[in-house]
Amino acid sequence: LSVPDIIARKRQGLEHSPEELEALVLGHVRGEVPDYQVAAWLMAVCFQGLSDAELAALTRIMAHSGTVLDLSGVGRPVADKHSTGGVGDKTSLVALPLAAACAVPVGKMSGRGLSFTGGTVDKLESIPGMHLELSAEQFLRQLREVGIVISGQSADLAPADGKLYALRDVTATVSSIPLIAASVMSKKLAGGAHCIVLDVKAGRGAFMASVADARRLAEAMIAIGTRAGRRVAALVTDMSQPLGLAVGNALEVREAIDTLSGRGPADLAELACTLAAEMVCLATGLSHADAHDNVQRALASGAAREALGCLIQAQGGDQRVLDEPSLLPGAPLVQPLLAWRHGYVAAVDALAVADVARALGAGRARKGDPIDPAVGVVLAVKVGQHVERGQPLATLHASDGVRLPAACKQLAAAFQLADDPAPAPPLIHARLGAAETTD
Amino acid sequence: LSVPDIIARKRQGLEHSPEELEALVLGHVRGEVPDYQVAAWLMAVCFQGLSDAELAALTRIMAHSGTVLDLSGVGRPVADKHSTGGVGDKTSLVALPLAAACAVPVGKMSGRGLSFTGGTVDKLESIPGMHLELSAEQFLRQLREVGIVISGQSADLAPADGKLYALRDVTATVSSIPLIAASVMSKKLAGGAHCIVLDVKAGRGAFMASVADARRLAEAMIAIGTRAGRRVAALVTDMSQPLGLAVGNALEVREAIDTLSGRGPADLAELACTLAAEMVCLATGLSHADAHDNVQRALASGAAREALGCLIQAQGGDQRVLDEPSLLPGAPLVQPLLAWRHGYVAAVDALAVADVARALGAGRARKGDPIDPAVGVVLAVKVGQHVERGQPLATLHASDGVRLPAACKQLAAAFQLADDPAPAPPLIHARLGAAETTD
Repeated sequence: LSVPDIIARKRQGLEHSPEELEALVLGHVRGEVPDYQVAAWLMAVCFQGLSDAELAALTRIMAHSGTVLDLSGVGRPVADKHSTGGVGDKTSLVALPLAAACAVPVGKMSGRGLSFTGGTVDKLESIPGMHLELSAEQFLRQLREVGIVISGQSADLAPADGKLYALRDVTATVSSIPLIAASVMSKKLAGGAHCIVLDVKAGRGAFMASVADARRLAEAMIAIGTRAGRRVAALVTDMSQPLGLAVGNALEVREAIDTLSGRGPADLAELACTLAAEMVCLATGLSHADAHDNVQRALASGAAREALGCLIQAQGGDQRVLDEPSLLPGAPLVQPLLAWRHGYVAAVDALAVADVARALGAGRARKGDPIDPAVGVVLAVKVGQHVERGQPLATLHASDGVRLPAACKQLAAAFQLADDPAPAPPLIHARLGAAETTD
Repeated sequence: LSVPDIIARKRQGLEHSPEELEALVLGHVRGEVPDYQVAAWLMAVCFQGLSDAELAALTRIMAHSGTVLDLSGVGRPVADKHSTGGVGDKTSLVALPLAAACAVPVGKMSGRGLSFTGGTVDKLESIPGMHLELSAEQFLRQLREVGIVISGQSADLAPADGKLYALRDVTATVSSIPLIAASVMSKKLAGGAHCIVLDVKAGRGAFMASVADARRLAEAMIAIGTRAGRRVAALVTDMSQPLGLAVGNALEVREAIDTLSGRGPADLAELACTLAAEMVCLATGLSHADAHDNVQRALASGAAREALGCLIQAQGGDQRVLDEPSLLPGAPLVQPLLAWRHGYVAAVDALAVADVARALGAGRARKGDPIDPAVGVVLAVKVGQHVERGQPLATLHASDGVRLPAACKQLAAAFQLADDPAPAPPLIHARLGAAETTD
């Protein structure tokens, strides 16, 4: 079949053979199939979707377009955790040490954030000395010897995804659920982890605005992973308001440390513990109840905090940040936003908070842009709380006084204050996955 | 709006403003909008369609992307005729002289055939000496002085369509009815004719397989032309079997001359006269009955045959071909295909006959390929006729004995012979257009 014939088959709603997908995707990586043909195919996929078999084949082909890590040398199942991205989402910095402290080897390759704030790698980079560009050999050695490792993605991890993503970004084909699922899972499969826990965010501050779409995405990713022989579970979680209180790279590292020290925000602690327990379940076969008990013990004993310290030390970072948060970059300007009336916090628009953080310099407008690790927003209240007039709603951390007035005004618009108490949104909307019925 | 935003609007089924279409199409012509973004948009159009207002704006923008001919200097309404393409479709070579002989100035800019056989320009090029690449000045002067002119399209005629068509061809987005309508009509609008008669083919040998699709295409083109202030009529005509008997460039010129000499196949004569009468109606305001009478007189008197001679002479061709068809290129090998049984001709598959003609060298596989003017197929029978065993069904005209056995076998498969007489398909399925209610 010629490439136009392959595109025509998708336009007509027919199912691709693995060979057709291979010709298209690997031809694209080799530069033989031009962007314009792939762009037309991507748009056809937006309308016609992909069957489970097509999705599994596409993801496998993308995963195998570059190096695929073999983690069998670790000797035990390795767990990874992935979030589809949210505002204030520093969960990996808490959940991974929690799982590691429960004797589950955790290895995560993470992309850099492309939107409001940095990704996990950007956040960790705010710790002085921290190396985050590990070679495959370094990654494997640390996983075996330390039991926990987080690295930026190597350029050779699923290069087909990199090419497809760049094209989707400029052709309005990003929002297709099967294409998102293939993109995420191709990197997870190439990363080699045996157990994959997915945190699929739903709400204003997430890629999926509705819980229904987030659930569909979770189901698609679980189907892909399961067909590829991985153990996969997924939570669909709230992203209508930011997670925790801090939004900004160093500010989020600090909040993660606080949470591992037992004094973090309740929602972050709950979500991180739940995700860590899922990792423990998948990797060890323990029941949910036992996994949860183990995770709680790892938190209370300080073992998880210590695991974060090991991670930082192994990657050249300054472990003293655990006790001396002032070693993290700090913004010179800190300004509170005060409540203009008394009442109940009815909404904190995650997207609007994220836009403020990005405007302050915490995120990237485009790939390769520098980010300012020190700046961001720290909320003082969450949805459902009561505030008096003049009480702080949040503080802005800025490097630049010129941007502050506009950012402050923009941040105020993120808050809704009402006469009557609003119920806090549920933190976890749904749990999906292979282990669903084992309890 | 950014280009991805424009693409996203079409993906979501929203209506484009003329400014959005201009940004996309003219940006593409200027090389500022890359092929991959236009390809994604084209595929979105395949699924979401275009409104009448979008279609009118898109076509106007495409038409005005290059030179737009101003034919007002002719002093009378100029008529053009366009076919969506069929097998054995030499109607222009008959209908245009018929209209010209009725004192209607006819000017046609025509593309080269891209499929089974050549286009009108390729067919005329089989006449020795004929020039078919006229400048705009030459085109206008001949239109004024001779009253009939046919030229290949100048490169500057609707260049946006040239770029879009090339992209559609390789991205499986050719078959969208609004995109076909915009492509055809952008060239017709740029060509400047005041009156446009469209012959929209339906059937196995046509781009539109069904009469319903052909009717939709005709309606879309009439709507575009009418909004642009042109007088437009359209016929939906049969292309289940080839039109007339000859399929191949010089063979078709010979059949056109025969038809203008009163000894052509009945279906070709009827269709050409009907299309010519439509041109006369639109251009002069005569009733259909009067227009038809004028056309019949122009045929019977030899005036139309003489008009073809004037066309040939004005463009440097050898007018003697009218009386001495042996001056046209002839194939060295002529082989009959004989009926293998007696019975009634139930079907002559136009697409299969076209494939044989192309295999013999009459058509192009890709743009710029040379064609052999001499080769092709001449049918001896049409659907509905009775044949005896051993009677010729057709003759193959070939330059190359090596290809003949396979071509002969392939041609046999195009014929269905049955015990019972099959009704001949109707030649004209429908007539549409602004003048529909004027009789």
